[in-house]
Amino acid sequence: MVDSNYREELKQYIPFWDKLSSNEQEFFMNNVLDLKYESGTTLHGGDDDCLGLILIRNGTIRTYMLSNEGKEITLFRLNEGEVCVLSAACILDSVTFDVNIDAETDCEIFLLGSTAFAKLASSNIYVENFAHKIATERFSDVMWAFEQILFMSFDKRLATFLFDEYIKIKDKDNVIKLTHEQVAKYIGSAREVVTRMLHYFANEGIVEVSRGGIKILDEQKLRDLTK
Amino acid sequence: MVDSNYREELKQYIPFWDKLSSNEQEFFMNNVLDLKYESGTTLHGGDDDCLGLILIRNGTIRTYMLSNEGKEITLFRLNEGEVCVLSAACILDSVTFDVNIDAETDCEIFLLGSTAFAKLASSNIYVENFAHKIATERFSDVMWAFEQILFMSFDKRLATFLFDEYIKIKDKDNVIKLTHEQVAKYIGSAREVVTRMLHYFANEGIVEVSRGGIKILDEQKLRDLTK
Repeated sequence: MVDSNYREELKQYIPFWDKLSSNEQEFFMNNVLDLKYESGTTLHGGDDDCLGLILIRNGTIRTYMLSNEGKEITLFRLNEGEVCVLSAACILDSVTFDVNIDAETDCEIFLLGSTAFAKLASSNIYVENFAHKIATERFSDVMWAFEQILFMSFDKRLATFLFDEYIKIKDKDNVIKLTHEQVAKYIGSAREVVTRMLHYFANEGIVEVSRGGIKILDEQKLRDLTK
Repeated sequence: MVDSNYREELKQYIPFWDKLSSNEQEFFMNNVLDLKYESGTTLHGGDDDCLGLILIRNGTIRTYMLSNEGKEITLFRLNEGEVCVLSAACILDSVTFDVNIDAETDCEIFLLGSTAFAKLASSNIYVENFAHKIATERFSDVMWAFEQILFMSFDKRLATFLFDEYIKIKDKDNVIKLTHEQVAKYIGSAREVVTRMLHYFANEGIVEVSRGGIKILDEQKLRDLTK
């Protein structure tokens, strides 16, 4: 339980505060904890874990997927004033996946434990809606992250291939003598996709595309794309 | 506006029906449309499109991401009795991404247009909560899809997809009637990659590939590959 001095601060985090009855407000205050996590510690570690609703007072938490082989994919980060609801996935029937959550910096949080959160969400539709709404916002964050991962990598792949080829022929005429079809085969893509991205690179002044091949105009920009 | 005979059918789709005032119920009935889409048509095509809430009476719709390069990644499919809310993304502040939605088969739907849906969602917290809850369920679907794409090896991904399809058609003729191109779209890969892996599966006696589709020969081996 937190000191009553925290009441005003808490209200900032939760738009449903005014929709709580005075009993529910008391219940909330009596069940919320203020906690500190050191940088690098795990707040929420997967399936068997259901911490509750996290309100970040300061610091940054990072949410990520972890494969069986230990591969990590960062989904989103949350900062001061933001709320994490995936740490209370057990409360929401509609959330059937689990994620990992670490403190990326030292953090201070308010925590409404899962049991108390479940009780409020089941008795008050505004609390339930808040949880679903926050989850939907995180859905948007995750879609953005996946777009980067799944779609943005192609320019990097193509740039890396071109840069490697360029290193081999540098100081001759800077022209990579390959057709788009050949480039596509080397990097496991389709010719049209390669052509479209090369036109994009050409518009950026990175390459010049001609029948003879692909001329590298700006080594530094190309190198930057490979990073 | 649909015939009042539809009222009972509509109520099955929307758990918030009893939370609507009688005026809101009338408003709903007066603003819902029954529409048909042919297999392959686009229901929702991206940023500039905000159809509204879709209730699927029969058929299957497919939701996918589309990259600038034309790469498709299937996020989830919805069937009879299910509700799609991403077709009304403009109504929900918390949804900041957009997706594409196609009719995968001939479909009959009820549509509550985005203006009417926005009006109900802003006046009735149960409608708003329903929308956020459905969006959160789709979040779970999408997380599942991304786990497959990002963490599973390709043979496992393909086997999992085939096994899921097989379960649906089992005891008919065990033939999944999809082209390699279609399979590639569903699992976010390229046709050549799918074809190569199917030939490998065929050599292993797991499937038989023909013009008519993909016949499952050895359910146990296929199942083993999904693990």
